[in-house]
Order: sequence, then C-alpha cells, then structure tokens
Amino acid sequence: MSTYVQDFADGSMAQKDLLGGKGANLAEMTRLGLPVPPGFTITTDACRYYLRTGKVPTDLRVEVTQAIRRLEDTMNRRLGDFHEPLLVSVRSGAKFSMPGMMETVLNIGLNDASVQGLAEQAGDERFAWDSYRRLVQMFGKTVLGIEGDVFAEELDAAKAAAGAASDTDLDADALRALTVRFKEIVREQTGRDFPQHPREQLDLAIVAVLESWNTERARLYRRRERIPHDIGTAVNVCTMVFGNLGDRSGTGVAFTRDPATGQPGDYGDYLRNAQGEDVVAGIRNTLPLAALEEVDPDVYNELRGVMRRLEMHYRDLCDVEFTVEEGKLWMLQTRVGKRTAPAAFRIAAELEAEHLITLDEALMRVSGDQLSQLMFPQFDRKAAAKATLLTRAMAASPGAAVGRCVFDSQTAHDWAERGEDVILVRRETNPDDLQGMIAAVGVLTARGGKTSHAAVVARGMGLTCVVGAEALDVDPAARRMTVDTASGVVEVVEGDVVAIDGATGEVFLGAVPVVPSPVTTYLTDGVDAALADAGEGDAAESLQALVLAVDRLLRHADEARRLRVKANADTGEDAHRARALGAEGIGLARTEHMFLGERRVLVERIILARDDAERDAALAELLPLQRQDFTELLQEMDGLTSTIRLIDPPLHEFLPDLTELSVRVALAEERGESSPEHSHDLEVLAAVRRMHEANPMLGLRGVRLGLVVPGLFGLQIRAVCEAWADLRAKGKDPRPEIMVPLVASVMELHLVRDVATAIMAEVSAERGAACEIPVGVMIELPRAALTAERIAEAADFFSFGTNDLTQTTWGFSRDDVEGAFFAQYTANGVLTVSPFESLDLRGVGRLVDIAVTDARAVKPDLPIGVCGEHGGDPESIHFFHSVGLDYVSCSPFRVPVARLEAGRAAISAVGHSDSR
Amino acid sequence: MSTYVQDFADGSMAQKDLLGGKGANLAEMTRLGLPVPPGFTITTDACRYYLRTGKVPTDLRVEVTQAIRRLEDTMNRRLGDFHEPLLVSVRSGAKFSMPGMMETVLNIGLNDASVQGLAEQAGDERFAWDSYRRLVQMFGKTVLGIEGDVFAEELDAAKAAAGAASDTDLDADALRALTVRFKEIVREQTGRDFPQHPREQLDLAIVAVLESWNTERARLYRRRERIPHDIGTAVNVCTMVFGNLGDRSGTGVAFTRDPATGQPGDYGDYLRNAQGEDVVAGIRNTLPLAALEEVDPDVYNELRGVMRRLEMHYRDLCDVEFTVEEGKLWMLQTRVGKRTAPAAFRIAAELEAEHLITLDEALMRVSGDQLSQLMFPQFDRKAAAKATLLTRAMAASPGAAVGRCVFDSQTAHDWAERGEDVILVRRETNPDDLQGMIAAVGVLTARGGKTSHAAVVARGMGLTCVVGAEALDVDPAARRMTVDTASGVVEVVEGDVVAIDGATGEVFLGAVPVVPSPVTTYLTDGVDAALADAGEGDAAESLQALVLAVDRLLRHADEARRLRVKANADTGEDAHRARALGAEGIGLARTEHMFLGERRVLVERIILARDDAERDAALAELLPLQRQDFTELLQEMDGLTSTIRLIDPPLHEFLPDLTELSVRVALAEERGESSPEHSHDLEVLAAVRRMHEANPMLGLRGVRLGLVVPGLFGLQIRAVCEAWADLRAKGKDPRPEIMVPLVASVMELHLVRDVATAIMAEVSAERGAACEIPVGVMIELPRAALTAERIAEAADFFSFGTNDLTQTTWGFSRDDVEGAFFAQYTANGVLTVSPFESLDLRGVGRLVDIAVTDARAVKPDLPIGVCGEHGGDPESIHFFHSVGLDYVSCSPFRVPVARLEAGRAAISAVGHSDSR
Repeated sequence: MSTYVQDFADGSMAQKDLLGGKGANLAEMTRLGLPVPPGFTITTDACRYYLRTGKVPTDLRVEVTQAIRRLEDTMNRRLGDFHEPLLVSVRSGAKFSMPGMMETVLNIGLNDASVQGLAEQAGDERFAWDSYRRLVQMFGKTVLGIEGDVFAEELDAAKAAAGAASDTDLDADALRALTVRFKEIVREQTGRDFPQHPREQLDLAIVAVLESWNTERARLYRRRERIPHDIGTAVNVCTMVFGNLGDRSGTGVAFTRDPATGQPGDYGDYLRNAQGEDVVAGIRNTLPLAALEEVDPDVYNELRGVMRRLEMHYRDLCDVEFTVEEGKLWMLQTRVGKRTAPAAFRIAAELEAEHLITLDEALMRVSGDQLSQLMFPQFDRKAAAKATLLTRAMAASPGAAVGRCVFDSQTAHDWAERGEDVILVRRETNPDDLQGMIAAVGVLTARGGKTSHAAVVARGMGLTCVVGAEALDVDPAARRMTVDTASGVVEVVEGDVVAIDGATGEVFLGAVPVVPSPVTTYLTDGVDAALADAGEGDAAESLQALVLAVDRLLRHADEARRLRVKANADTGEDAHRARALGAEGIGLARTEHMFLGERRVLVERIILARDDAERDAALAELLPLQRQDFTELLQEMDGLTSTIRLIDPPLHEFLPDLTELSVRVALAEERGESSPEHSHDLEVLAAVRRMHEANPMLGLRGVRLGLVVPGLFGLQIRAVCEAWADLRAKGKDPRPEIMVPLVASVMELHLVRDVATAIMAEVSAERGAACEIPVGVMIELPRAALTAERIAEAADFFSFGTNDLTQTTWGFSRDDVEGAFFAQYTANGVLTVSPFESLDLRGVGRLVDIAVTDARAVKPDLPIGVCGEHGGDPESIHFFHSVGLDYVSCSPFRVPVARLEAGRAAISAVGHSDSR
Repeated sequence: MSTYVQDFADGSMAQKDLLGGKGANLAEMTRLGLPVPPGFTITTDACRYYLRTGKVPTDLRVEVTQAIRRLEDTMNRRLGDFHEPLLVSVRSGAKFSMPGMMETVLNIGLNDASVQGLAEQAGDERFAWDSYRRLVQMFGKTVLGIEGDVFAEELDAAKAAAGAASDTDLDADALRALTVRFKEIVREQTGRDFPQHPREQLDLAIVAVLESWNTERARLYRRRERIPHDIGTAVNVCTMVFGNLGDRSGTGVAFTRDPATGQPGDYGDYLRNAQGEDVVAGIRNTLPLAALEEVDPDVYNELRGVMRRLEMHYRDLCDVEFTVEEGKLWMLQTRVGKRTAPAAFRIAAELEAEHLITLDEALMRVSGDQLSQLMFPQFDRKAAAKATLLTRAMAASPGAAVGRCVFDSQTAHDWAERGEDVILVRRETNPDDLQGMIAAVGVLTARGGKTSHAAVVARGMGLTCVVGAEALDVDPAARRMTVDTASGVVEVVEGDVVAIDGATGEVFLGAVPVVPSPVTTYLTDGVDAALADAGEGDAAESLQALVLAVDRLLRHADEARRLRVKANADTGEDAHRARALGAEGIGLARTEHMFLGERRVLVERIILARDDAERDAALAELLPLQRQDFTELLQEMDGLTSTIRLIDPPLHEFLPDLTELSVRVALAEERGESSPEHSHDLEVLAAVRRMHEANPMLGLRGVRLGLVVPGLFGLQIRAVCEAWADLRAKGKDPRPEIMVPLVASVMELHLVRDVATAIMAEVSAERGAACEIPVGVMIELPRAALTAERIAEAADFFSFGTNDLTQTTWGFSRDDVEGAFFAQYTANGVLTVSPFESLDLRGVGRLVDIAVTDARAVKPDLPIGVCGEHGGDPESIHFFHSVGLDYVSCSPFRVPVARLEAGRAAISAVGHSDSR
C-alpha cells in the first residue's frame, strides 16, 4: 500500500489532515466526477518525515515513480517526451491556508527536447517556448532561489527590443531567445545548468515545497496564526492544462455568490490566453466572468453547472480556479470562499432559506466580529481613495467620523454646544478629557495602544477612535498639529476638518463622505425602521437583504443562548442605550465618574479633612448627588438588575499631578508669590506627596480604600439604598446589587458586608420597607480566584473583572506596556492578540475556571458573570459559556455582538459546529 | 453517662479538645496521684451548645448538681454550709492558651452565713472575711461587670483609714466593713443584691466564663492567632484551697528549669499568706522559690518531687501553680512552660542528653525564629532600662547598634571611612542610599513598614534596622531630627550618639552597652572559637552550654533535611559570608547593582543612544565590569551553583526622578540659564518623560526589557560565559546558571534561550571549551505558575520569586500598601502577618503547588527552588518542603535559620512532630 502518495481519484475532502486543503478538495472534485486534470498528492506524512530527518523518505521516490507512470498511462503522454510530453504542476497545500507563504512551480517536464514535442502537440511553437521560459523563470526563482527581478528585467528588455506592449506580443523566436537567456541566468547565478531531466526538475520542486514550510516568514505566520509547526504541508502534482494555448484558452477565478455583498449569482474574473499566475499577478486586465459566455457559451454553461454542484455539495459559498484549454474546462482548485461581513450574513441566511443548511449552521457561519463591522458607518471607499491621507495608525474603535479638529476638552465641549461636529485630538487622553470625548464625534491620539484610555473609553461609548498616530506632532498649547507625510509636512490647525476611520486607522485631511449603517438602525429601532432607512435602488435591495439576514440570525441566537447579556453602563443615558440594544441588565456601573468634574472639590475636601467631622461633612454633600446618579440608572433599568461597583481607583487620582504641581509651586516660590492659591497649592502638594504611590494600580484602591477611609463605602451604599427606597415608593421595580472591588481575602468582604447590613437595616427602618440588596464581589485578583471557595460563602454573586485579572496574572499594566512592547511582542510571536482584547485562556482563563469550580462546589446556585472588556469579545464569550457563567456584561455597543456570540457558543457547545 | 461534666479523676491530658488545656492537665496530675484539689471540668461541648443556642444545656444543671454532690461527699463539706462550707473556684480553660482573655472567680460558696463557717473551720475570722471580700470583688467585676477601680478605690480608702501599708495589715473588722461596703457597691451598680445562694453564684460564674469566650477582645485575639471561634472553652470548678490562711500558707509559681537561660534546677516565686491572684497582681514582693525550703522544708521537698515527676512525665520544661494551705501542698495547674530562645535550645539539647527525648524531638522543640534571635548582639537590658528612650517603632532587622547619627549616605560613607560607627537616619531609603547603608552599623527611618526598602535591604545585609519611627521629624538638609517624647521635644543633630534595637524597635539617645552573640561566632567560626569567645564565669558557662546546644541541634537538622539551603548574594563578599554560614550555593544573584554608582553613566548612554552603534558601544564598556562581578561571585562559590538573574528593574529607574528633574529644568528656564548641564538635563528629561511608567512594577522590566533593548541580556549572558571560561582556564570549577526574570509566557523563554544558545556556541568556539550553562526561569507571575507545564519544557530549572508572586497574586505592591493599610488590615484581622514575610499558603502557596505539580508532570527531575524572602521564613520553609522543592535560597544571615527549619520540616513531615 502506498504511504506517501495518493491519487486525486482515491481521496476525499475528509482527508485534509493527510492531503492538505487543496489536495482534499481536488480529490473531492474528482470524486464528484468534475473535470479535474489527473494528478496525485504527496501527503503531509512525507513532509513530517522530511521535517524530522531533513531527508525525503526513500519510499517516496518509488511511489512518485509509480504515480507518474499511472499519470503517463492515463494521459498517454510521457515526462520529457520528444513528441507527447507530459507536463505537471507542483503546488503546496497545507491543512490551513497560508496565503502567499509557500511555493508553486508550473510546466515541469519541459526541456530542450520536450519543448519541441509540446510545440508539435499543440501546433503552436510560440506557446511551447512561452511555457518553457515560464518554467525556467519560476523554477529559477522558487527552486534555485534566484532573485525574481533578474528574470523580470530580462523579460522587460525583450519586450522593449521587440516593441511589444505585452508578453503575448512576443513571438516564438523572441521567446526562444528569452528562454536561452533565462537558462544563462540560471548558470550565471547558480553555477550549474538548468536541469534538463524532468524527474530531477520534479524532485527538486517537491523538496522546494517541503523546504518552504520552514522559511522564516512561514514560521512567523504560523506563530501568529497559532498553526502548529509540526503538521507539515502536502504537495500536489497535477497534469498541466494550458490556458495559454490561444484565444479559445484562458484561465479564471470565480465565486458561487458575490463575496462582497452575498448577492446570489456567479461572480468572477477571466483572462484569455493566460496561465493562472497571470491572473494573480495582474499583468493584464481581466474580463468579468460573464464575458466567457460570449467567448465560449458551452464552457460557460459547464462552469456554471460545476459551480452550482459545488455549492450544493459544500453547502456554502465556494470559490474556484479553472482553466479552459482550447474549449475544454478544467477545474484546478475549489474551497469554501472568504467573504465580507455583509456577505457572510446574507449568504448564511439565504442558504438557510433555500433549505441548504439549518438555522444553527447559518448562525455558525457568521461572527460577532462581522456583526460589529456592520454596526458602524463607513467612509465611501471610492471617495476615501481620492482623499489626502495624513497617516495610518491604530484602529481603536470603529466608525467613520468627520469633524473639525480641536485640541482640548473645553473647546470640544463649547464647539459641540454650538452644533459643530468635532474630532478631539490629544497626545493621549486621561479621565479629565471625558467631557471632551462625550462632545466629540471622534478621538485621535498620538500615543497609546488599543487599550489606552482613549481606546477603552471610546469603545465603551461607541465613539470612533484612532490611537498611536505617532506621525502627528500635537501641540495643544498652539492648538495645532504637524504631520510629516510622504508629500511633505502638513500643518493642521484648530477648526480644520479631518476624517478618521476607526476600522482602518486612516486619518484624512478634509471631509470624506460617510455611508450610514442600516444594521444599527435595525438593532435600536427594529426591522421596519431599518428597511425604510435603506433608501431605494440596487444598493437598497442589498442593504434590506442584509437587515433581514441579521434579524433572522440574531433572533435565532437569542433563542439558542444560555448566557444572559448585560451592559457596562455608568449613567442613565448609557443604560437607556444599552437597553435599546438588548441588554438584560447592567453588569457593571462604575461609580468613579461620580467623583469627577465639579465634585472633585468634595473629594479634595475628603482627602484634606483635618478630622472626622470635616470628612463626614464632605461625604454628606456627595450623598444626594450619588443618590440622584443611582436613581437615574435604576429607573432606566426598571425590572432588571443593576450591579453597582463601589469606588475603585485610588483617591489621589482625583488630585492634581505631582510633577505639574511641584513645578508650579517651585516657580511660584522662585517668584516670591504668596497668593491664597499658592497656599492652597502647598496644602494640596503635601497631600499629593503623602498619597503618592509608586504603583497606584497596586496601591490603596478598591476595597482597601473603602476600609481605610471611614464612611466612603458607607456613603455609596446608603445612596444605593435610598435610591432603591425612593423608586419603590413610586411603585417602580429597582433591582440594584452592590459589588465590592479588588477583594483579595474573604475577610475584606465580611467587613464591607457588616457595613452594608447595618445601613440596609437603617434604611429599612427609616422607610418601612425591607431593604435587602445583594452584596457581591468582583473577582479581579488572582488571590480572589484562588480562594473563591471561601469568598463564595460570603458573597451573593461573583463578577469577574477580567481586565484587572489580566493585569495581575500577567504582571503588566495596560497603561504601561502596550506602547512599550506589545508591538515587539506581536512581531516576535509571543502574543498574537492583546490579552486585554481576547481572554488569555491558558492563564487568566484557568483562574476563571478554578474560581467557578471552587465557588460552585460550595454554592451551586451562585450567580457568576463577567464584566471586564472581554465580556464583549467573541472568543472569550465562548469560553465564558463553556465554564458555565450566567452572564456576560459589555459596553452597550457590544451587546448585539455578545448576544450573537452567546448563541453561537450555545450551539457549538452541543455539537452543531461547522466543520470549517 | 455524663455528657457535659467530667471529674478531674476521670480525665487525662489527651483530652484537651474536650477539657481544654487546664482541665486536661489537672486531670493528668490527678491521674498521676499528685495533690490536686478535687474538682470537675465542664466540657467544651457545653460551651459550644451555649454558643449555638445562647442557653446552658438543661442536662448541665443536673450534671453540675451531681458533680458538686460528689465534691461535697469527698470533701465532707457543703456549699454554703454554716459550719463546714465547701468553696470552689471557677476558671476558664480553652484548648489554646488565651492569656488574660477570659475569666476566673475564686471563693464561690461564701455568703453571709458560710463566712462564719469558714471562720470557724479555719479558726481565723480575718481570713474568712478576707476571702469573702475577695469573692464580692471578683464576682462584682467579672460576673456582674462592675468597673474594677470602684472596688480598688474602696480598698485603698480602707487601708488609708486603718493606716495599713498592705491588705494583710487590715484586721477582721476592717475586712468585714469592707465586705459590707463591697456588697453595697454591687447593689448600687447593678440594682440587685449580691447573690447569697452559692449555687446561684456558681451558675452565674459559669455563664460568665462561657460569655467571656465571645468578648470583642477574645474574638480579636483569636482572629489574630487564627484560633477557630467555634471550639469554645471548658470551665474548671475546683475545690478552694487557701494560701491566705496565715504564715504556714502561701502560693507560688515555679518552673522545672530556668525559662530564661534553660539552666537546670527549680526556679520560681513564692508569696506567703496569699491567694493566687496576689502573685500575678504583684501587690506584694514575692520570695524566690528557695525561700520555701527555709519556711517549710517538707513542702519544699514534696514540691520538688512533684516537679521532677512532671518533667519526667511531660518530658519537657513544666511550669506549675501551687498553693500551700497550712503546710499542705496543692497543685493548681501545670503546663509545658514558655521559654526564651536560649532556654529553648539548651533545654531541648539537655533533655536529649538526659535521654528523656530523642534528637528529632529536641529539634522540634526549637525554631528558626529562636535561632535568629540568638544570632544578633543585644543591648544589656539593665542598661537599656536606664537609657533615654526616644521612641519605639517597627523592629525591621534585629541587632543592637550604637553609633553617631548621620543624615545622608555620603556622610555615612565618609565618617565610616575614618573609623566612626554611624547610624544612617533617613525619612526613607532608596537604592541610592546603598553606599550609606553599607557604611552604617544601623539604619533608622521615619517611614515605611517591615518590607520597605530599608527593611528589606537591611535584613539582607544583616544590618540592624528600625523603620516607621513616625515620631521622628527628620530634616536631612539641616542635618538633624526632632523627636516629640513624653518628656518634651528632643533635638538630635549630626554626630549625636543614638542606639537602636532591631529586635524591639527601641531608639535610645546615647550609647547603650551591647552584649555580643557567641552563637554567631559559632556559626561562622565553629564551636571552639565560640567557646573561647564566651569569656569566664557563670554567664560564660551559660553561653557555652548554649553554643553546644545550638551545635548539636543544627548538626542534626543538617543531617535530617532534604531541602538544600542556598543564599541570595550579589557580590563576592556576600557570597563569602553566605558560604561561611553554610550556604550550598547562590540561589539568586541580582545583577541590578552592577548598573548603579559610576555605571549609571553607561546606563544613561544606553537609554539616550541615538542608534545601535552608540548603544552597543555603551554595552561593550559594561561587559568587562560585569565579567569581573561574575568572576568574583563564581570564584567564591567554586564547586557550587550560582544562579545569576538577568537584569530585572525598568531602565528608567536608573535615571533621575521625573518630578525633581522637572522642577530643576523649570527653575533653570525661569532663570534663563543655558549651561551645558541644562542642555543635558533637557535631554535626560525627555527620556525620563518618554520612559515614565504609571506602574513601573507592571511595566517594561525583566524579560520584557531584555527582549526590547537589543543586546542587553546578550551582554550579561556573554559576561557570565566569559567569567566561566576564565575560571575554567584557571582550573576552577565555576557553576553559573542563568535565570530569566518575569517570564509570563514560554515564548519569552524560548527567545532568550535562542540568544543564550548562540552566545554559548560563540564562547565555546572562542575558548575551545564546551560552554553549556543551564538557563532557567524565575516563576514570579501568576501566569508563569499557571502555565508551568509549558514553561517547564523549555526551562532547565525553576526558581520561585515569591515576593513578586505575592505582589501580583494579591494585587498590591509592598512599596505602596504596607504603610497605607497593613496596620489597619492587621487591626481588623484581615491579615495576621504580612504575606511578604510569611508565604500566603491559601493564595500564593496554591500557585506554587500548581506550578510544581504541573511542571513535574512533564519533567519529573526539574530542579525547583525558591529565592524570594520567604526562603528564609520558618513557616514558609515547611510549606516548601511539603510541596517538594529542592532548595530554598535566602539572605546569608538567614541561612542557619533555614537549615534548622528545613531539618524540622523533614522531621515533622515523617511524623515525629511534637504534639504541642
């Protein structure tokens, strides 16, 4: 039995591990009786042997000989024959697609003798020499490692000499001369002759493909895509068919539906009198597929039939490569085709409507990432191509925003008030920029990564954001920025219009037209509103089909999912938006913002208080403000739970920056100033120094702060209780929950619970209503996860704070490391994706798993959710489903994404997963 | 069968769970036939019932009645009898000693009637009234909750009225009047009469003892000592015997050996004509035990016999409480006695020499903490008592240091150079103070906790250190400090002599005489040197016995232990010291110090380098310096392994402070300066700003730094390899290992290994010797522990960095939180000990366990050690033994401690543990 070689006729698409993707699909088409040129696949076993030993298995040579003999018999041609030569192609084909990573050689079998045979056989000398020069060129480059430009320059020289516009204009003599010249190049560059023996050509080409598995770029690609290094590639050896045999020949690629829009109907490109690589190389302009109908209606009809057959068989969009040799159709490749986000939804929904797949399968064909792409408005790409590109930076939060540049928050606010669209441009943002971010239509920063403050806040707000645009030299004092572009330094001043694309990271000077998203209209206002919004004409039909597809699949996801989806929302406005997008409660309401803005004065008073009375007075002033905040939130979420997190950041974050203040004080002293402001500065500086922390992320924050500053948590808990009582008195159904942040030990939770229990008893007595609000804990430190069994006994619920949990598990703060080394870590393959974006399953995920298992062991009904950013990340959601969480909570704009992915997770968990 | 009550005659010392410590030992003495007054124990079952239900079990009343009846029969007396009254004491007694936490009532059974009977029976009216007034006083205070001062003032008034110096000078009439007055107090304070019914007295006293289990101070004590709240206390009811029946009566406490020195021979205090509480209260001066021999030789001999019997039986130092009633000895309590560190060693070694215990048992009777106390010189306590105490702060690193105050490192260095002993006084220290700390004999800081920089470095150096002395107002600019003491503000200027005690935290003004430690001489120079060092006379004999005891037990620990003990040492000098103290290698050599001092200039050049060439040049200049460092280290450790950790802290730590530099630059600009220094400052400031991190602990450090700064790790690895080659060439046996810090992902380790492998190959080629140095990883992030299985595959060894692992597992940095909230957290019971001092087994320990288990699953022989500070902590060492580590590494001065504890861990693991 053959071990290392399998004929196309003997395999099937189930054998991707052994035959690679291309080989398995060629076998499948052969099995279906489709016109595939005969050939065979050298299996991945052979490659793995080669990777282990550095040698081709001895048996392989024999098996290749036998397979070639079978080919020769089938085709009635012989390798290297002077009259009836057999020519073959050698192509790589791994299990996972690695586009452009590996090697292909065509026309193997040609030499100085068989080129004559080919000419004779085809009746076309020009074609024969064209094929031969292609072989020498490709072989030289791919197998012998000669720089491709050397051949390209020679080809250009030949065209110039002949006055030829295209290589098809070169005649047989010119091509013969070129072939001779190419062979000279081979001798010059490698010190040896171009191998004349066809079997030597074949063996060298096979080894070249095997070698190409381990090139540096291939290894890097696999490291990034997390494709194992040891699976190896298959090698496909296929009888050559020729699209370059004159005008009744040609080659093309086609799709069974439009991969851009999903619209049904064939779609593709065709190039007459050409071999496959010409289409890819874009040497000549291709024709639309429909042109083939005019050229050769029979072939066209046969191709359409093949494609219908393939779509039925694969039950999905397929793409194909084909060649027409003198009116005869040959299929060279097929696979399930890549598609855009709208196409994915439309194709999945329509295949289901055509009863080709089930609804579960349809849902598995789309993804949350695709849905999120559909939710954002986008620039008109044609217009964008013509606009002035200033720079391309990191795409941090999608959308397309156009507005006037402003360089500070106050101006953003003021201009927005008078109705201007503004883009807030900063070196980097901090919590004080919140007002400006709320006012802006987009945010652009010169520094920071995908999880910088700007990026995180913008994603939470659904605000378009581009970060880390290092080409920008932002000068807020001068209210301008300069950009060093390819065409010189451009200055952009306050009020100039820029356009930023949060999906591509592009920054344009001037306005670019924006296309709105009907999917977002659908998600917030329903199907009818979205259909009405789509407008008229062809494009409208496409958009309407998309809306219906999204509706069908999202409704199915909602029915299928077990995970509930809540939103992270801090204000009534956020809560309202979240609910419109389908949130089933608030999983995280941060209370920090309630200490910002004008309320900073009160925080300063709390910090500077000389005694309990002063501090209590400041806290008492905060109480009605907090109560009002909570009342708004709970009112919006009437009937649904709202998890309110007690204040988390260190108090000194609400004080001025140490360095800035030190400089101001030093300068004031240098100048001999003695104003009341200076005295105040001195007092504040003393406090800032006293409270300064080397690592605030690991400092006096969260529950520690609550236990050290008397009355702080008490104020917040009382505000929650009173808001609850006020709404209950109005006949509402408020459902607050209190969440304690940064717990490391169950003792901390006990102490906060004691405070909460006492306050609830007080409020119950004051209001005559039994105030019993659940008190739970944010699991965001490794120790909390590791001691979950004990913490669970004292907690009414758990919510994983996976952002902080990631920071401490990895020991890096996202503020500090993203810019400093994430780029490097991605380049060298340590990270494929930021663990702040997609949950690190091996490390952080293991902690989550430990905590859930241990907590449920003592309290099987403990509600457990997640409220870190990962709650809206597709891959992470599947994990959260699998470990048995009850809900995920994410930013309002991610709610539909989370709903979709939660549905997919539920389906894939019960085994309806697509095999792709 | 009785459930809640057990007579002394029916129990044994094995029943501590049921009878408490005191009850079990009373039963044991009864069993041995020693003279214990009859009595019974109310079991902890009764207390647990009371704790659950708030009620005394119904059966208990009946059982107490029966037990009292038995007592009455045995004693032929009756509770409350007019002629022959039975009196009893009621004492608490839990399983674990809770000194001073709970209640005792004596003389129960006296009332207005039975006091006559007692007078009659004793033939001593004064005694009877004295006993009665004691009952009313104790009962009023303990059972009825009346402030004790109220009675004490009345007693003082009575003494004053009678012109009596002591309460023994009060006659019967005065005491009768006092009793009447005490009863009036009871009525005034509680609104009810003092209970006359003896059984009511007894029942109330029993409930008072049960209630005392749950007082706030008792709960707090248990929380701190980690004693469970639900075990409850027993209550001992014992026939009263009277030491206050005249001069042939008395009461005392005694030890079977001297608990201060361990010297054999009885030792104790005796008080004639007194009840037990008088000894404790210190109302009158006690006599030494030997005085009893003169007073009553028969009783004295009987007591000595009892004590010999007890020591034989308990096979350990016992302490006893006894009473002599008219020439008859009664034993009221015994237990294994507490002792000082020197006594512990001497007693254990001598009991073994007397063949009373085994060597294993002897080793289990001493601890590493005790050994470490013995290693430090101490102040002469008598002299210290007379010295001027400035303040008492945190004892951070033991020892007794006397020297002149200096307030900056340079002065410390300069004065030390000219031969002065100096104490470095700082607000807090940082790495720049290292030179000063090395020069000083002690360090005193106004801020910081037990793991502040000063404390950690001082412990590492074995340097006496007191920290967090907040009473000190340190003014380095003025070279002085002021201290607000009880007797006014004291100013201490540069050059004034102070004395600091690193074991007690005391700070004295002026010199205090110091007693050196012969144990340290023994550890470094051997037995003979230490014996010679001890001097002459009684004290010398004691010290010599101590040295011999330490030697015997430490040698046994070395034989018994499985854990190897290495040292953390950064320099040749450290390494030399470590080896002298028994270190079997270096487990952690930090390379940071090699970037300090004059070499900072090179670091600055690395950071400011405009291109690779500039950076490489700076690195090249560092190479010979590093090689020299490593050569010294490896030479000292010839034949033993030295684990060298690649540079860990972020590079910007070697640059000036952002705030200081910003102020300097701003002032220079304000003044219009334009010196070359200013230009340089500007350049450095830009770099400091660029590299500034919000949380450097979580920033660009460790392996991240090594992967981002080209050549940095390479320089260090090459220096290690070259140092190895140099020493090999000289015929030495250098054994370096390279440790990669802060690894979170196995990919990071792979990348560093690639660099190391290449450099080793280069050096092998250059030197013609196969350079193969193990490359291991520091497990100091939760993720490293959680993914240990993968990391193990690429590592030659693991070493746990438990300091950093604690920081990230708990999410707090020791720099920031100790001062801010550890005090609070200790007060409220969240922490009993800093997790930086003793490993947090539940959280950090679980990670260690996971990592060891997972790593050994794939690589059973992987060497695994620990090099955090916990490597020298006794409790932690037992854990490290139990999870199967190969070695611990600690600061040189902790090496003997670790050796001892590693021996104890090995013994206790195989079950030779003492039951105490």
